[in-house]
Order: sequence, then structure tokens, then C-alpha cells
Amino acid sequence: MSTETFDRIATIREFLRAAGAGGRSIGLVPTMGALHDGHGTLIEKARKECDVVVVSIYVNPTQFGPDEDHERYPRQAADDEVYCEVRGVDAIFAPSDDQMYPEPLETSVRPGIEARRLCGPFRPGHFEAVLTVVLKLFAITGPDRAYFGDKDFQQRILVARMVRDLDLPVEIVSCPIARESDGLAISSRNRYLKPEEREVASVLNRALRVARQRMADGESDPAVAIEAARTVIDLVPQARIEYLEVVDPERLQPVGTVSGPVRIAGAIWIGETRLIDNLECDSKRKRRRKKKAEG
Amino acid sequence: MSTETFDRIATIREFLRAAGAGGRSIGLVPTMGALHDGHGTLIEKARKECDVVVVSIYVNPTQFGPDEDHERYPRQAADDEVYCEVRGVDAIFAPSDDQMYPEPLETSVRPGIEARRLCGPFRPGHFEAVLTVVLKLFAITGPDRAYFGDKDFQQRILVARMVRDLDLPVEIVSCPIARESDGLAISSRNRYLKPEEREVASVLNRALRVARQRMADGESDPAVAIEAARTVIDLVPQARIEYLEVVDPERLQPVGTVSGPVRIAGAIWIGETRLIDNLECDSKRKRRRKKKAEG
Repeated sequence: MSTETFDRIATIREFLRAAGAGGRSIGLVPTMGALHDGHGTLIEKARKECDVVVVSIYVNPTQFGPDEDHERYPRQAADDEVYCEVRGVDAIFAPSDDQMYPEPLETSVRPGIEARRLCGPFRPGHFEAVLTVVLKLFAITGPDRAYFGDKDFQQRILVARMVRDLDLPVEIVSCPIARESDGLAISSRNRYLKPEEREVASVLNRALRVARQRMADGESDPAVAIEAARTVIDLVPQARIEYLEVVDPERLQPVGTVSGPVRIAGAIWIGETRLIDNLECDSKRKRRRKKKAEG
Repeated sequence: MSTETFDRIATIREFLRAAGAGGRSIGLVPTMGALHDGHGTLIEKARKECDVVVVSIYVNPTQFGPDEDHERYPRQAADDEVYCEVRGVDAIFAPSDDQMYPEPLETSVRPGIEARRLCGPFRPGHFEAVLTVVLKLFAITGPDRAYFGDKDFQQRILVARMVRDLDLPVEIVSCPIARESDGLAISSRNRYLKPEEREVASVLNRALRVARQRMADGESDPAVAIEAARTVIDLVPQARIEYLEVVDPERLQPVGTVSGPVRIAGAIWIGETRLIDNLECDSKRKRRRKKKAEG
């Protein structure tokens, strides 16, 4: 069976109404295209769990700031179709801006407190635009499950919160971050990196792992763990830190003392490229495991 | 067939999934209960147009201001059930606050420019709360059509705008205002009126009709038409004007010159009771009709 591509809201709706008839479950993987192994993980999980898999490909203009990379964001429709085809995707929804925004929106989705930390202050309006377009994609495709990668874990948390708050009839499924062999989180934006930048780009992941280890070893002051991460990044002259934060994994608020599960997340710039990454840390569990190993 | 009442999200969903199977259409009439002939018009239209009719009854606390009438808003569950039963309603969804707001919401629906005039400035946060709960009700019941009365025409315009902006798969159907014989728009709040207040309560409708007549007669300055309406209301000592406005019927912005269809809307207080009303006005069409009659 081959992947069908739709560029209009009316036709994807018609397709999914027929394909989803009789209670067949629909899985949506929302993407901005330039598909890579991170998306691949999501698609494969959706393929296993759902009767019908639809991948949306839309570089949503409203979620980019005026100085951001909307223009140069990679577009590769033909490659993406092949990528979906070999993974058994049933339908691609790749709408034009005219379909998604026939006129400027008046109504939007206002995100909660979870949008205020981490990437929030550096990308004003970003998460409001993301939640709004995700809600539109949900309304258009009516999925039973939607798949989000943990690289954008703040986005996934905000989407899950929107679903809970607004009673949307969709289950949010997350997948762990797909990584290159040196630890760099796979991202469509990695292709912006020049070869010499790519060589040092894994520093963010290394720094986060150093901080996580500190907390696993018993460091309860997040500032100390963050300082350790900062030191690692500062050794790379091409890297500029945007933020490094330890937050609680639910509300994404800064924690004063590490005493349970937290998330450490960061954004850095390498040249003209912005990279983000994050790790789950559970100090307690790790300490307990360590004790057991020692005992 | 009798009306079934549901107070839980999970059970109304289950009922509607079964009732709506095989493409049977679902019509939703969202109400705050205390059902009257205004709701009756909506229910009867839904009954004609849809296979399954569900009436939601929920006095949404978040859309009331701190000084508003949330506490004293009329509640009459038993009467409402009978009202629905005799009109062939299939299901009532009457959730508790715990079902709708198990925790304070973080995510909400931000309304557009249409929320800024008319009732907007006098009820800060009202339309955001209304759109949010309406979106929740849509997400819970998944209606093909939803019915809104024109008494709350600003609400209906905002809901329709939300549906268009967010691609919600529901058709918004409106019904004209149901009125008492003296012209008073029927409202659950009318029962707050003391007998001597009720006697003069139709003044708002009379005032709006005077203004509409002025515009139909060729008055192109909305301020003059509004002044005529104000004069009518000022004759009633118990009445206090909150606003009187002539707006365009799409974006609800004030019009400088009346040259096509407009809406004249107002809110007044009679004692402790706030009344709203509005009329469609089309100066051109009326003038043309008049010319024809004269010619």
C-alpha cells in the first residue's frame, strides 16, 4: 500500500473519515518535515499502535520569531514522501499556508505556566503558536493518538496539558530522544552546522550528562549541577549558552532542592545554529540503585 | 424514548459514541440550564436537523466575574429534565465542577478582537472563559452542529470565529432571539426582575428599535441613532445604561457611518438585573424597500 499525500483540509478529512470508519484508530505524527530518525521512532511506534498512520508536514510560520529560521528551515517534500512510504505511513498531510491560515487568526490557544520557563522567554509567542497549530491539526485529523518526541519535551508537556485542560479526545504518546553516536540529539536543524561546528555540537549533551551525574551522586543543589554543566560548555569557544535549567518534570518550574525526579534542559548556540537537549534525572532512584550495587 | 442524563465526561462520551455510530449526526445545545423558550427554539431546531440531540447544562463558574451572579443563577435540574424530555432530547450532559475543572486550567482559548467591544470591557475574562468551556464541551460531545441563540450574539460570533480559526469540525447554527409579547428578550435572568422592574424591562428593546428605525430612515451617523435610543431609556428612572453600540456584524467594531448591515446592541441594568439585547439593522435594504414602496 502506498502513502497518499493531501494538501487540503477537506480531502484529508474525507480520507480519514473513510479510513477511520468502524472504530479503526488513527495515529498522528505532527512534523515540520525534513524527516529523520527522531521522526522515524515516532512513526514506527504509531505504525505499531494504530490502524491508520498520518504524518503531518507543515513548517508553521506563526511559531517562528521574526529573527528565526523560518525561511531557511529545510524543506524536502520528495525525500519525506519516500521516508514515509518505506515506513508504511498511510497518509501525509502537507497543507499550504493558505489552507492553514486563509486569514490571520483571531482565536488562539493560550498556554499555561509551563510555557514561561526554558525556551519560553527566548521565543516569545512560540508555544502559543505551537499549541494553536497542534489543536488545528488535531481538529483536522481527529487522531486517537498523537506522537511527540522528547527532544521538544517542553512542547510535549504543554500539548499534554492542553489535552487535559480542554478534554481533547486524543492520547499523547512520547518517544525518547533519538541521538547520533556522539550523543547529539537528532534534529532537522543539525544540518545547519558546519563540519567544525558539528564536531563540537555534542557538548550540550555531555554537559547535561555531567550535571545529571552530579545529581545522581547526591548533589541536591541544582545550581551546583548547572555550574558543572556550564564549565563543560565554556571549554568550547564556539558555544554560547542560552539557558541551562533544572525544573520539575510536571510544571517545568525551577526546583530549589533536588529531591526527586527532575528534568535538566538547555539551549546553546553554535555559530548560527540553536541546539536544545534535555535529560530526565531521578536522584533518588539512582542513589538507591547505587546503594544496592555497593551493598 | 426518554432523555438520559449524564454527569460524567466518560459516560456521555460512551453514550454519544454509540448513539453517533454509523454517521448519525449529533446536535449540541449548550446551556446554563433554567431552560426557557429561547432554549426551546434551539432544541427544536436541533431535533429537526440532527439524529441525536444533546443538551449540556452547566453553570460555568469561570465565566462569572467576582461580583456577578454565579451564586444566585437559577438552577432547576428537575424542571430542565422535563423540558428536555417533552422535546425529545436524547441526552442531557450536566457535569459537576469537579468533572469540568478537576484542577485549575492552565490552557485556555484566547478570543480575538470580537471580544473587545460590547460586553467585553464590562466582563473582563468572560469570553475567554466562555470559549474555553465551549471548546471543552465540543471536545467532550463531538457534535456535528452546535446551536447558539442570538441574544448572546457576541458569544455566537466569537464561537463561530473560534471554529473557523481552529478548524473545529462543527457547524455553528444560530436562532433568532425569542421574546416576550412586549419585546423583552427571554432570558433566565429575567426572573431576577421584581414585578415593577419587569413592567419597564422592555425599554431596552424599544430603544434599540427606535435606533434601528432611525437608521432605516436614512440616518447614517450611528451616534445620532444611539442618542435616540438613549433618550428612550433615560425616560425610565430604574434603568441604567451600561453600553449602547452600533457595530459591524462580523468583527463587532464600531462603525463610523452606517452604509450597510450593522448590529445595534446594548446592555442596561434594571435594579440588580443586567439585561442585554441586540437587533440586526440593514439600512440599505430597508431604504431600497422603502423606495420601492414609494415608487
